Amino acid sequence: MKNYIQADEWNIIEEGFDPQLNKISESLFSIGNGRMGQRANFEEHYSGETLQGSYVAGVYYPDKTRVGWWKNGYPEYFAKVLNAAAWIGIDISIDGRQLDLHCCKVLSFRRELRMKEGLLLRSFRAELDGGKIVEVSSTRFCSMADDEAAAICYRIRPVNFSGQLSITSSIDGDVKNQDANYDEKFWEAINSKQDSGADYLILKTKKTAFEVCTATFTTVELDEQRLSLEAVSREKFLGHTAASELKEGQELRITKLAINLSSQNHEPASLLDTAVAKIADLKNKGFQALKNAHIAAWAEKWEESDIVIEGDVAAQQAIRFNIFQLNQTYSGKDARLNIGPKGFTGEKYGGSTYWDTEAYCIPFYLSTAPQEVSRNLLIYRYKQLDKAIENAAKLGFKDGAALYPMVTMNGEECHNEWEITFEEIHRNGAIAFAIFNYIRYTGDAAYLADYGLEVLIGIARFWKQRVNWSSDKQKFVMLGVTGPNEYENNINNNWYTNKLAAWCLRYAIEAARQVAAENPEAYHRVITKTKFDEGTEFADWTAIDQQMYYPYDEKEEVFLQQDGFMDKEQILVKDLPASERPLNQKWSWDRILRSCFIKQADVLQGMYFFEDEFDQETLRRNFSFYESRTVHESSLSPCVHSILAAKLNDEEKAYEFYLRTARLDLDDYNNDTEDGLHITSMAGTWMSIVEGFAGMRVRNGQLKFNPFLPGGWKAFAFSIGFRGHALKVKITAEQIIINSEASEDLEVCIFNHPHQISKGETQIAYKTLLV
Amino acid sequence: MKNYIQADEWNIIEEGFDPQLNKISESLFSIGNGRMGQRANFEEHYSGETLQGSYVAGVYYPDKTRVGWWKNGYPEYFAKVLNAAAWIGIDISIDGRQLDLHCCKVLSFRRELRMKEGLLLRSFRAELDGGKIVEVSSTRFCSMADDEAAAICYRIRPVNFSGQLSITSSIDGDVKNQDANYDEKFWEAINSKQDSGADYLILKTKKTAFEVCTATFTTVELDEQRLSLEAVSREKFLGHTAASELKEGQELRITKLAINLSSQNHEPASLLDTAVAKIADLKNKGFQALKNAHIAAWAEKWEESDIVIEGDVAAQQAIRFNIFQLNQTYSGKDARLNIGPKGFTGEKYGGSTYWDTEAYCIPFYLSTAPQEVSRNLLIYRYKQLDKAIENAAKLGFKDGAALYPMVTMNGEECHNEWEITFEEIHRNGAIAFAIFNYIRYTGDAAYLADYGLEVLIGIARFWKQRVNWSSDKQKFVMLGVTGPNEYENNINNNWYTNKLAAWCLRYAIEAARQVAAENPEAYHRVITKTKFDEGTEFADWTAIDQQMYYPYDEKEEVFLQQDGFMDKEQILVKDLPASERPLNQKWSWDRILRSCFIKQADVLQGMYFFEDEFDQETLRRNFSFYESRTVHESSLSPCVHSILAAKLNDEEKAYEFYLRTARLDLDDYNNDTEDGLHITSMAGTWMSIVEGFAGMRVRNGQLKFNPFLPGGWKAFAFSIGFRGHALKVKITAEQIIINSEASEDLEVCIFNHPHQISKGETQIAYKTLLV
Repeated sequence: MKNYIQADEWNIIEEGFDPQLNKISESLFSIGNGRMGQRANFEEHYSGETLQGSYVAGVYYPDKTRVGWWKNGYPEYFAKVLNAAAWIGIDISIDGRQLDLHCCKVLSFRRELRMKEGLLLRSFRAELDGGKIVEVSSTRFCSMADDEAAAICYRIRPVNFSGQLSITSSIDGDVKNQDANYDEKFWEAINSKQDSGADYLILKTKKTAFEVCTATFTTVELDEQRLSLEAVSREKFLGHTAASELKEGQELRITKLAINLSSQNHEPASLLDTAVAKIADLKNKGFQALKNAHIAAWAEKWEESDIVIEGDVAAQQAIRFNIFQLNQTYSGKDARLNIGPKGFTGEKYGGSTYWDTEAYCIPFYLSTAPQEVSRNLLIYRYKQLDKAIENAAKLGFKDGAALYPMVTMNGEECHNEWEITFEEIHRNGAIAFAIFNYIRYTGDAAYLADYGLEVLIGIARFWKQRVNWSSDKQKFVMLGVTGPNEYENNINNNWYTNKLAAWCLRYAIEAARQVAAENPEAYHRVITKTKFDEGTEFADWTAIDQQMYYPYDEKEEVFLQQDGFMDKEQILVKDLPASERPLNQKWSWDRILRSCFIKQADVLQGMYFFEDEFDQETLRRNFSFYESRTVHESSLSPCVHSILAAKLNDEEKAYEFYLRTARLDLDDYNNDTEDGLHITSMAGTWMSIVEGFAGMRVRNGQLKFNPFLPGGWKAFAFSIGFRGHALKVKITAEQIIINSEASEDLEVCIFNHPHQISKGETQIAYKTLLV
Repeated sequence: MKNYIQADEWNIIEEGFDPQLNKISESLFSIGNGRMGQRANFEEHYSGETLQGSYVAGVYYPDKTRVGWWKNGYPEYFAKVLNAAAWIGIDISIDGRQLDLHCCKVLSFRRELRMKEGLLLRSFRAELDGGKIVEVSSTRFCSMADDEAAAICYRIRPVNFSGQLSITSSIDGDVKNQDANYDEKFWEAINSKQDSGADYLILKTKKTAFEVCTATFTTVELDEQRLSLEAVSREKFLGHTAASELKEGQELRITKLAINLSSQNHEPASLLDTAVAKIADLKNKGFQALKNAHIAAWAEKWEESDIVIEGDVAAQQAIRFNIFQLNQTYSGKDARLNIGPKGFTGEKYGGSTYWDTEAYCIPFYLSTAPQEVSRNLLIYRYKQLDKAIENAAKLGFKDGAALYPMVTMNGEECHNEWEITFEEIHRNGAIAFAIFNYIRYTGDAAYLADYGLEVLIGIARFWKQRVNWSSDKQKFVMLGVTGPNEYENNINNNWYTNKLAAWCLRYAIEAARQVAAENPEAYHRVITKTKFDEGTEFADWTAIDQQMYYPYDEKEEVFLQQDGFMDKEQILVKDLPASERPLNQKWSWDRILRSCFIKQADVLQGMYFFEDEFDQETLRRNFSFYESRTVHESSLSPCVHSILAAKLNDEEKAYEFYLRTARLDLDDYNNDTEDGLHITSMAGTWMSIVEGFAGMRVRNGQLKFNPFLPGGWKAFAFSIGFRGHALKVKITAEQIIINSEASEDLEVCIFNHPHQISKGETQIAYKTLLV
């Protein structure tokens, strides 16, 4: 755990330079706009520890898989998000000596992420050989208003000397991924152009043949005077240099406008021409106008998604940081894109799509972004249905059964650990649940006819084939799975997976009947396309749903995570010595597997998904049983515990679980922030507040709140969009205050008491309702 | 399956050259002597498909592990047997053109392995450019009389032309392993010497720093006239060349005497001097004398271990091939060596030690080799006890608990698949069982005091910590294991492992009590060294033994392979379409895991180990249940089925199972002989005959036979050594005929009827005893 980020409501601030922390800060201060992202690497050369990262959404490389022992069915490759051409480079030489913070005395240093405006600021004073002191300040952003554009303004000033300063502003395409399995480079240069301050470099990925044109336009000014630039180039590298004598105190200003255009969005043949036109456009607008548009776009984002916490600066900073990163990662404009667990902040987990999106991120975007944003996340999976059917076929399933991959870029499975790839199949259920959740929230039932039903049929068919009849139990069982609790592998009858599977079958039938009733034409199209045999398939699915086996412990009266769970030695987390944690670093894998300790409680995840089925007492028993055995070594774990604790009115515990992930990256809890941020778990933090503390739910088309105010807070407030209503909800110790901008009224329930919300502010005292 | 090896009782013969079969033949025609081994690569250059392999026992390299996803507890490296310097090279040029069977017309070709003499013969006629025909014949052996020596006699004759012939006899140390994880070379050259026909090359392994001096002495003769030789050398390569005009029909004879001296057996500093002396000695003796001594040594091996089958040439050839390879692989002279699953015939499985040795090979060596051979195999594990304790400690076990590795060279674990490495712990039991089995056979109870007890204590301590008390079952359970049936992973209460563990605890107590009674001094030494707490540890072990849980199915009345086995869909192998087999190639891993199909039946393995506990009816029920679900996709599987079928008087099935492995490599059943031979499963074939067909057992110090004669056979006979008695046992349809060379009488039991065996021949009609 680190504690070097200064507390501030709107800004992330690092004061002073510690090379040990540099990679962590590079992650924390990352900027992005849903289409591209950039770690907070320095513009000038840096020879110290760094993870260089510039990412272009949707551009990946199928890196040849590395396994110890091949298992039948493994995918041939692991798709990786690519470290793309470095567009930020501004190399500085002072009297012939390269400026490099690793090799000089850093007198002062400040990195600042202005979340409100989406700006990365950096300033420092460094002392070079012979006591020469320079001062640098830079501002950088990836434009939220134009997601192909980015810009830098970089200023440098000799503080106590006069001397020769030369700069090289460059695009460096000779980059690689640190996580390349065989140390290969993934890009080839295929075209380039240089033209009075502008550099255009087109790189193409090997195998996948994505083309990306990275282009920059650089101006260098001294006292409002533009310096002349000279083009330089070598393999995969383009740049422009300028040089000048600077007097003590004189400032050189370098402005760099940049674009990344991908062949996903532009004709490859015209990529260069498009780039030339686009650079011309940016030049016309200029840095200041670009920046203003960017800030305005951010203002809009904040309007939709901000959470205000009064009385706790650290908590305020944390939640804003999480919301900021979520908005930087996914804008919802493009249904081909998704949310990698590290977003655009690192290479780890390959930038690929996991079930995190459906289980944790969709609720965030449902409430804080226009409806098409979460709809696009669903359509992403719809577009990959064919691949999911292929994927299932590779594993021996047939007749249109679909198994969505554990990790994917283009719909193909990338993961290669049999206990995950082949067995962690609950992901398939989460994808169905997201469809249900989306419709429950938005009321957009038409989605089923257009896209959802096909996906639900494929998923239901998978479950139908994945269970088998146990003549021993006289029930349907599901053998050989891994639940969300990845500290158990290849188990039988994982309660969560069985539960989810049965629900999927039920929901698929319900969805089919609904489409048949409401849109017979669409229904006909879907059953023809999927060769759906209504009679047999409905009967099969219903039989499984009705006769599914659910492990249960009579003594503890809890749902059992899996068959045989009570054979384990029942130790509680509180009795584990601190020296043995985290288990995943201190214990061998076999010991973890046979212990009762849980990475992420999957029974509780199931009770969260299907909460209306369970009374408070059942929830309390299960929560108490599983919570005491859960080590939360997945960043996705605490939020569900927080929400359930809130539901059980255990406010203290709800807050405690919230705290575990709120500042996960800011304080580098797990010593891994340097690899990138835990983007998807950030959505969980949002859920802890909105679904946990505010107790927000949507049931029968109605918004419900069961709020409480965490101990140290004075109030908290959040913005949500709900079926055309933009609401600001504020919760104080006594009141829930809802501000609506809609002219139409909205009925909401506070502790099950209906209240009419009209335009303007409505104050409701909730404490009395609670009793 | 291939069928190109000619049937012959004593020889393996390949007639005609098919490049497609070359790697298979390179494996089949491998030669070795327990200290070194050599695949049947050609002496002359060959540019076609080949797996070059020269191996020196005990010399390994810790190749950096390659895994997809690291798990805590994985070993850092996988030890690999090394492809060592190629000493066989005799390169031929005819009128300036290199002889290469890949690039000329092969008119005739014959490879022959004379198993009786241990000789590899090869002869061919090849037509070169312009119709020039040459004839070559070579004889090669790795001396069984002197296990550091080998020799080649290579003759070449222009058949229809006269021309210039030049030869280069070489040692090529610039070799690598095909299975190197990162394509590295593992050897460095550290010294060399060349001296009138002799080449000496000392290579040293990286990291492990083994040194091997490979030396050869070459003579080239034309009509009894020695040609003069010229030394040639380059990096890691030494050789001598000779050239001469040959007249049509004239024969050039190249004789190459070779040695491999390892720093395991010689002081590194004097390795070169030792080699010089040794080469001088070989020169003195000459090729013919070396060959004679080698043949004589083989005659002795055959005297001890031959099996004669009358009336079935294919079966005769097969069993001799298996015995031949077992004797080539392990001589039992050196307790630092062991038996790799591929012996000296390929790189696969790293040439390392597996539980195959204890479970399958020890019975063979017990009966067919002097007692110290199997004793040395036990001492190998004794010497690695410290490492086994370290290995257990890495996984969280303490207080001297020992977990022997799944795969090892020097006692450290090399395997890195969690479900095997950490979970396939039954190997620990097999190591204890081998001690019991050795003493049962030999009567050498003193072994316990000297070595065995320490090992048994370490193993018992491991099991004690590996089980846990299930408050649910009120029994001790063992969670998260993989049994010998590797088509189940991470299962609970594997019947075989539980059974073996409880037996180990019981046997350790029994062994301790026996040593305490018979050799108090040794007992004191062992309990001091192991810090053994007799009171507590005996009590703990007894409690576990008495309250161990064994899964059982009441309906089928069979021991259950593991918890939940009856939840699986119960399909029988006979109902599997042929197109879906072998499962390990046709099915994805998850499908295999959740099916009821068994790679190797571990309940039956347990019933074989502890057969005296079970009546015939129990055995019959379990055999019938598991046999029908077993796909035998491990070459170690059929032999146990064969032995049990024999016990159940199902002679047909016993023979059928025998056939499955007898010619496994000769007929390339599994399409993998090119990687090397299945050495350890060859011992299983021997067991099928001796323990299966002849029904041989040792009980209470007495030899027992329950024989039958397989259908098509006229008779079979085998040699065994038993407590000082060298016996030849012949079984005909009616009689068992035992020839003893010992002057002392021996009582043996035939179908539980005691018979006195005196020196000379005893004929016993067994059919009448059977009733």
